Amino acid sequence: MLKTIGIDIGGTKIAGVLMDANDQVLREAKVPTPAEDGQAIIEAVIAMIEELKAGHEITAAGVAAAGFIDAAQSEVRYAPNLNWRNEPLKAKLEAALGFPVFIENDANAAGWAEYRFGAGRKSKNMVMLTVGTGVGGAIVVDGKMFRGGFGIGAELGHICLIPDGKMCGCGQRGCLEQYGSGTALLNRAKELISSGSAVNSLLGQKVTTADELTGSHVFEALQANDELALGLLNELGSYLGQAIATLTAVLDPEVVVIGGGVSILGEKLLAPIRDAYLEHLPARGFRPELSLVSAELVNDAGAIGAADLAREHSAAR
Amino acid sequence: MLKTIGIDIGGTKIAGVLMDANDQVLREAKVPTPAEDGQAIIEAVIAMIEELKAGHEITAAGVAAAGFIDAAQSEVRYAPNLNWRNEPLKAKLEAALGFPVFIENDANAAGWAEYRFGAGRKSKNMVMLTVGTGVGGAIVVDGKMFRGGFGIGAELGHICLIPDGKMCGCGQRGCLEQYGSGTALLNRAKELISSGSAVNSLLGQKVTTADELTGSHVFEALQANDELALGLLNELGSYLGQAIATLTAVLDPEVVVIGGGVSILGEKLLAPIRDAYLEHLPARGFRPELSLVSAELVNDAGAIGAADLAREHSAAR
Repeated sequence: MLKTIGIDIGGTKIAGVLMDANDQVLREAKVPTPAEDGQAIIEAVIAMIEELKAGHEITAAGVAAAGFIDAAQSEVRYAPNLNWRNEPLKAKLEAALGFPVFIENDANAAGWAEYRFGAGRKSKNMVMLTVGTGVGGAIVVDGKMFRGGFGIGAELGHICLIPDGKMCGCGQRGCLEQYGSGTALLNRAKELISSGSAVNSLLGQKVTTADELTGSHVFEALQANDELALGLLNELGSYLGQAIATLTAVLDPEVVVIGGGVSILGEKLLAPIRDAYLEHLPARGFRPELSLVSAELVNDAGAIGAADLAREHSAAR
Repeated sequence: MLKTIGIDIGGTKIAGVLMDANDQVLREAKVPTPAEDGQAIIEAVIAMIEELKAGHEITAAGVAAAGFIDAAQSEVRYAPNLNWRNEPLKAKLEAALGFPVFIENDANAAGWAEYRFGAGRKSKNMVMLTVGTGVGGAIVVDGKMFRGGFGIGAELGHICLIPDGKMCGCGQRGCLEQYGSGTALLNRAKELISSGSAVNSLLGQKVTTADELTGSHVFEALQANDELALGLLNELGSYLGQAIATLTAVLDPEVVVIGGGVSILGEKLLAPIRDAYLEHLPARGFRPELSLVSAELVNDAGAIGAADLAREHSAAR
């Protein structure tokens, strides 16, 4: 009883879990995402859910996707990478599956998994920043998933950090995502290589031209404590810490979890974030300070969060 | 049954209301604040509550004050203008009064009143910005007062708008409050007078030196559609609109209410705020746009909100 399925539709893969009432993952599944073919994605999700459910009674499924989900959790309003616009995903999946389906934003689902089972589990008010290709966000308020008035809250990569700063895919300038993402880190490293500033650094020694540089190269240089690479990481952390100071003025969370690919650097990333947060914290010394921690769930956080959120819905009804 | 009292301890006056179960204000009271004398303020609050309650059965009282309130709503952690630091206000008031008392942040209480009875009453997710001496904030999430993990959320005047910008009383630079408050508007007008740029404006004609300029002068110039004053108001609105765009990335509210003294200018203030919000809105065109409205409750919003929040607490128990 109360078994649910969670699915996370990512840009490169679709991941799924079957979870029981004791929070145990009974089954996992993974397939490549049929990129940019919305109908094929839906078919792959249905097939995965049928496969995960075989032989079990399912109460509901949660399906997470990168994009704007409406407040009713039925439609994907806008998902640039998945080629969806006002896609009635809930209705289509429920028609095929015959049980309730709840659509979630992928960063929200991953944040919820951290809140329930990972680094945020000791708090009731948590913020997660996912530092990867972009910067994703999730907010838990008083033990509940925060979605916003229209379902599009916690798009934390798009708070304006630098007025008139770098152009962002969202049409604005100076968004946190342009300064605090893994992509931003890679781009800065490429800039240094192009300008000839990286000749004495592992960053410059790994490639012959800037274009060849990948995230793995940057990661290796950071693991080897390359000074230039560490400088860039400090820069990245400083931007994230400034953003967290502003988020604290708004949300006052007990804990901020840093997730996403870059977060596996652990304290190397957390230290500069923490320094910048404290430096920029309004009324510092007159208020409690939050805990800054790395995400604990590396794999399937989105699918696990979606499965648990589906259970929350079922329990509430 | 379910009558409550609400008190709002302001910098210059203490206001109180007695409210019945049908949201009617049965009695009002007002006295000057015994400034900077914490003990005298407590005595004045107790006397006011006793006076408001005479002849009625009271379930609880809500007491709003400018400052950081702890998450348990018992202590005023820090209230620079009232000279309180870790003041156990709830315990002191309950000992004297013999019924439950809940401490609230004043901007939260005023925002709650707008949510329940004013400009935010048609939404479930509201943000209020109070544009006065400073910039205060209140957030309603899914029909509930948002207080943050440590009780210090929604300090919206202290989001960083301009990195390395003007110094703020909170110890940081570039806070919204330094650009979007009534004080900021007055200071900008004084600057123009000092620099000789206001000679052809009502602003310059009202005073002989910049120091003599008051908020009333600026208000009169705005009422008379003085071009220079309107330019400053547009500037102010632009800062507030930019802040609302960033707040939308975080909170995605259905409605933003502009309150505080400056909000009586109505559409003259709302228009530039709305323009800047739309100009800076991330993913504009791919998401619903919020409603921007002026506060409707002018008097006693803080006291009314505190009375209603006390009722919420009582009903919940």
